[in-house]
Amino acid sequence: MDIGSYMAEVGREARAASRLMARATTQAKNAALHEAGAAIAAARAELAAANGEDMARAAGQGLDAAALDRLKLTDARIDAMIEGLSQVAALPDPVGVITDLAYRPSGIQVGRMRVPLGVVGIIYESRPNVTADAASLCLKSGNAAILRGGSESLASNRVIAACMHRGLRAAGLPERALQVIATADRAAVGHLITMPEHVDVIVPRGGKGLIERISADARIPVLKHLDGICHVYIDDRADLDKAFAVALNAKTQRYGTCNTMETLLVAAPVAAAILPRLGAAYAEHGVELRGCARSCELLPQAVRATEEDWSTEYLAPILAIRVVADLDEAVEHIARYGSQHTDAIVTEDYSRARRFLREVDSSSVMVNASTRFADGFEYGLGAEIGISTDKIHARGPVGLEGLTSQKYVVLGDGHVRG
Amino acid sequence: MDIGSYMAEVGREARAASRLMARATTQAKNAALHEAGAAIAAARAELAAANGEDMARAAGQGLDAAALDRLKLTDARIDAMIEGLSQVAALPDPVGVITDLAYRPSGIQVGRMRVPLGVVGIIYESRPNVTADAASLCLKSGNAAILRGGSESLASNRVIAACMHRGLRAAGLPERALQVIATADRAAVGHLITMPEHVDVIVPRGGKGLIERISADARIPVLKHLDGICHVYIDDRADLDKAFAVALNAKTQRYGTCNTMETLLVAAPVAAAILPRLGAAYAEHGVELRGCARSCELLPQAVRATEEDWSTEYLAPILAIRVVADLDEAVEHIARYGSQHTDAIVTEDYSRARRFLREVDSSSVMVNASTRFADGFEYGLGAEIGISTDKIHARGPVGLEGLTSQKYVVLGDGHVRG
Repeated sequence: MDIGSYMAEVGREARAASRLMARATTQAKNAALHEAGAAIAAARAELAAANGEDMARAAGQGLDAAALDRLKLTDARIDAMIEGLSQVAALPDPVGVITDLAYRPSGIQVGRMRVPLGVVGIIYESRPNVTADAASLCLKSGNAAILRGGSESLASNRVIAACMHRGLRAAGLPERALQVIATADRAAVGHLITMPEHVDVIVPRGGKGLIERISADARIPVLKHLDGICHVYIDDRADLDKAFAVALNAKTQRYGTCNTMETLLVAAPVAAAILPRLGAAYAEHGVELRGCARSCELLPQAVRATEEDWSTEYLAPILAIRVVADLDEAVEHIARYGSQHTDAIVTEDYSRARRFLREVDSSSVMVNASTRFADGFEYGLGAEIGISTDKIHARGPVGLEGLTSQKYVVLGDGHVRG
Repeated sequence: MDIGSYMAEVGREARAASRLMARATTQAKNAALHEAGAAIAAARAELAAANGEDMARAAGQGLDAAALDRLKLTDARIDAMIEGLSQVAALPDPVGVITDLAYRPSGIQVGRMRVPLGVVGIIYESRPNVTADAASLCLKSGNAAILRGGSESLASNRVIAACMHRGLRAAGLPERALQVIATADRAAVGHLITMPEHVDVIVPRGGKGLIERISADARIPVLKHLDGICHVYIDDRADLDKAFAVALNAKTQRYGTCNTMETLLVAAPVAAAILPRLGAAYAEHGVELRGCARSCELLPQAVRATEEDWSTEYLAPILAIRVVADLDEAVEHIARYGSQHTDAIVTEDYSRARRFLREVDSSSVMVNASTRFADGFEYGLGAEIGISTDKIHARGPVGLEGLTSQKYVVLGDGHVRG
């Protein structure tokens, strides 16, 4: 079978399975997730062997150390995968939730019911644990999923998918609700992202290059995350102890995450009071500083930032620092250079806090809190399939709700329109 | 200036204006709409003259009678436009509404704030009143709008846009928040739908051909409405008086609307009891019937339906009728032939009503109510920019809320992540 026909067949099967998943009971979906976890636990040796195969082949193909690390399934990572399935089972089922059901003047009752999107296509790179994590969110939200992992993790993904299938079967749900693309042929992705009749949304997980390529070519909506150029603005009415704590945590708590601060903005009147203290703390953490002219005067270890620094997501122990005149200049800087991901103000001023929340157009806006809080677990979504920097459909951390839509329900008693 | 540079300039201006609109007060936005209405009232003669020009040119170019009727701005239509502006001003402002603000275990408060999408591109055919209707919804929801009307209504659109600009100016809001594409060059649309950096969403209003072309070529999300193949299913546990009322109203209250019933499904056990009675009523209204074999036995005036009839949106006094075995067969028929727009069941059976609501995957699902209720006014949205048959972002009637998104707001007191 050629790749186009194979993918169309996968799509048709997914569409058919999605109709059954949409009406699956909460109990059945939870049972499938628990059974899948038990199956992974039982297949631990088999999974380790398959992952060993993937690792050996990848090493032979010269994959770098970071990619090999992402590919490796340690015992702890397998435990986390099983635990993740159990956590998703414990989340409230979004499907069927009816809200705002109210009588209208005509006498009909109108409300909205949450429903699955249908078929979700997930395209990801080396981490095989995504196979279980992403699939569990899709299934719990009543969707069918088509997964396309990296070719380097094919053997690991197959074993995980087989365990998920065991779970679905045990719960009386269709196995084809989860399909893992069985070919390493790169053309499979091209077909997956151009079948709007079979696939409702694409979620790419991986580097920016992957996401940009997919977004450019997709004929289906893409829930995507591009840059995370996050800012903290220390206002001149900030409590400087809070400012210190937030600005330090936002940069140093983890370096490689998308919600890590990449640029610190400081109001000129407090720059001399806060920057040297922060600079010493960043130095202790080995953070390289790149500052504007005024920042460099106050921070002897800083080098001069170039224009490019303001729009760079370092994902590393590097921080750009700029002294700004006031809130207006901070908001302007964020609008110009930011990526609409997560931005925070530190201030005790009521009106400025309100203005920042309203005027900064990012998926998360914060007052006196570290940008590192921007994620699904911290927000109470349970788990996230990704963080969206788009505005359409879902913005910010995307959990189960982001994999659903709402339809209108109308209840009448023989009502007709006049 | 070439068309590409012109459109890019329009896009940049819209983006800049959208930032100001996003923070505009409710008071200013409402004032702009009221002032625009007053300006249209004052420009009635000028508008009539411009519309006369458009009509004369269109007639000369051989536009058909239906298109000429859509193009014409009668006094009543101008009144409706002014009234529409005032109604949108009276709607609650969705922007800035914060929901679900709650404390998390970490101590931060997390909620969601409703925010404008940014820049909305509207592409429409001859009706010039869309210029005021669509623009008012975009502006009230804090967006900037780029309008591309049909070339046949260019003169009318210019006068309406000038009135809207007078309103914006009077309220201290940027005129460039509303731009009407000034060229008849068809390439303008091609640019408009492929500038994701300047435009956030496209709303096409017009025939299916227009919408399909735009959806195929757009590089920006499209809020679209394709077919409205709506069903009423009369269950064998229906109250037949309610069934009669709903099935008659759903077909005959208006023929050309997307929420009009196009196929009637009747459970076999009640077909003989309800179809002849309905058939007589349809005959009185001059509705042509196309039935399955069993329907034709019960309805002497019916002709046999072809396979094509089940997936045809007639938009006319024609109705397809099929006798089905039961609810399962009805749900299956709707899944196969429907357009996921609006479908209704008539039944007194509790469990079947619940099943229909859950299992039919349409933007509106109804029990014992006419499909004709599926619109923004009847649902309490105030006004609608369209009805979406998509699942992503907005489904069903799209009002002000569909032109917004939600961002996360996080309030802390110096909180950092552990």
